[in-house]
Amino acid sequence: MPGHSSPIGVFDSGVGGLTVLRSLTEAMPAQSFIYLGDTARVPYGSKSPDTVARYSINIAERLIEYGCRALVIACNTASAYALGAVRNAISVPVVGVVEPVSALVARRSKGRVLILGTSGTVRSAAYLRALGRHRSDLEIVQKACPLFVPLAEEGWLHGVVPEQVAATYLSETLEQHRPDSIILGCTHYPLLRQVIAGAVEAAGLDATLYETGPATAGELRAHTDSRRPVPSSRGTVRYLCTDNPDDFVAVGRAFLGDSTITAEHVDIGTSPC
Amino acid sequence: MPGHSSPIGVFDSGVGGLTVLRSLTEAMPAQSFIYLGDTARVPYGSKSPDTVARYSINIAERLIEYGCRALVIACNTASAYALGAVRNAISVPVVGVVEPVSALVARRSKGRVLILGTSGTVRSAAYLRALGRHRSDLEIVQKACPLFVPLAEEGWLHGVVPEQVAATYLSETLEQHRPDSIILGCTHYPLLRQVIAGAVEAAGLDATLYETGPATAGELRAHTDSRRPVPSSRGTVRYLCTDNPDDFVAVGRAFLGDSTITAEHVDIGTSPC
Repeated sequence: MPGHSSPIGVFDSGVGGLTVLRSLTEAMPAQSFIYLGDTARVPYGSKSPDTVARYSINIAERLIEYGCRALVIACNTASAYALGAVRNAISVPVVGVVEPVSALVARRSKGRVLILGTSGTVRSAAYLRALGRHRSDLEIVQKACPLFVPLAEEGWLHGVVPEQVAATYLSETLEQHRPDSIILGCTHYPLLRQVIAGAVEAAGLDATLYETGPATAGELRAHTDSRRPVPSSRGTVRYLCTDNPDDFVAVGRAFLGDSTITAEHVDIGTSPC
Repeated sequence: MPGHSSPIGVFDSGVGGLTVLRSLTEAMPAQSFIYLGDTARVPYGSKSPDTVARYSINIAERLIEYGCRALVIACNTASAYALGAVRNAISVPVVGVVEPVSALVARRSKGRVLILGTSGTVRSAAYLRALGRHRSDLEIVQKACPLFVPLAEEGWLHGVVPEQVAATYLSETLEQHRPDSIILGCTHYPLLRQVIAGAVEAAGLDATLYETGPATAGELRAHTDSRRPVPSSRGTVRYLCTDNPDDFVAVGRAFLGDSTITAEHVDIGTSPC
């Protein structure tokens, strides 16, 4: 039975969930984590809900084998399609990224919400449902921004190209919808936060940008042992991925701003039958 | 035994190979084709050579079951890593996209070649090897342009964003290397041909842009029955993909400029074991 010193498992379809992991390690610095990026099967957004659920259960069971005492699904698509299935399949607490930030925004918004995400997340309507469970009076617009992910992975976070991409996606929507709350509903988008904030400012809006990580960290702490004394030592993080670790490490170091991370390959049956 | 009226199979990791298919149907209008996009497992560029070879043999065998009398590997990564393995696995002619255009450029270049491709294609060095087999005196530079693929899939083919992206990737390389021949070594890049040509012009160069499709069509005709009389009727094209056909059709229609295409899902054992 996993104890308090056991790690918490965090998984994502690739490297994006590292932005969520960063929020978790900041909120729970003494806790150890195992991060698993399913880089062999990324992206999840274009796959069917059944496939995403099957992959997610597959990974969750592996993280349980590693002794994890709780799991975080750091992928928006997997949180949308697989949270219930994973909770049914395993016995430790499981937290997704969609619900916690939606609860927070539902509490704080003045009424107008903009959700930015991948095409898959927009199509899943997961944020619409999650916000709707908390409040029925919100006016919500969703906007898919497919180029934000490759921009973030390419490390083009500032300058003319990302600014123009953000303006192309957002200007009209911002001016017409005039949101007070904007959910960065994709794990990659926090890396483009400054550029997105620039587009918001250019539209003359004073909107709050919400990442999924901090709210997810709050729910994770509530589900785990928040009342135990905090150990003085820092927790460790172990990185696993299902494809070439070199690629994972190259992008992961840029995402975390940490040039010391290393990663191990893990085979979780990603080969075709 | 497949006869002259049998289709030719064309496969790619996704939709990109449709630009190659377009060249093939233009060159052989009476020929019927079956196109298979492995959209469930795209992208191949980040996967290991062994995995790409296994996937490619898997698809090639399926296309042979459909009665194909020849195969075209329309994917640069699969052409780089799997051409020999597929030729060993099946008995019909198999043509890749790397060799034919390399032979053409080796014949025509004045000596300075620039290869544009994905990170995977650049890492494979397939074009360096293919050009080197024909000529040893070429000065060759490779440049990965990872954002070109998502730009093409998003349909952002003109205007400030693709122009700035092309300038960022290419200006310095063009000015320093001064190529006379540029290989568009990724199936998506022909869609950005105008923008790439604009960057070449802005650098004051008079370089020729080579797509892989036309040269591949030439090799395919040489390998099949080019001397038989050409039937007067047009051939048909059947589209298959391994994930959601709706997504394939949406991007495929834009790629081919043909709003009438439809696609069928085909299961080729892409589920995890």
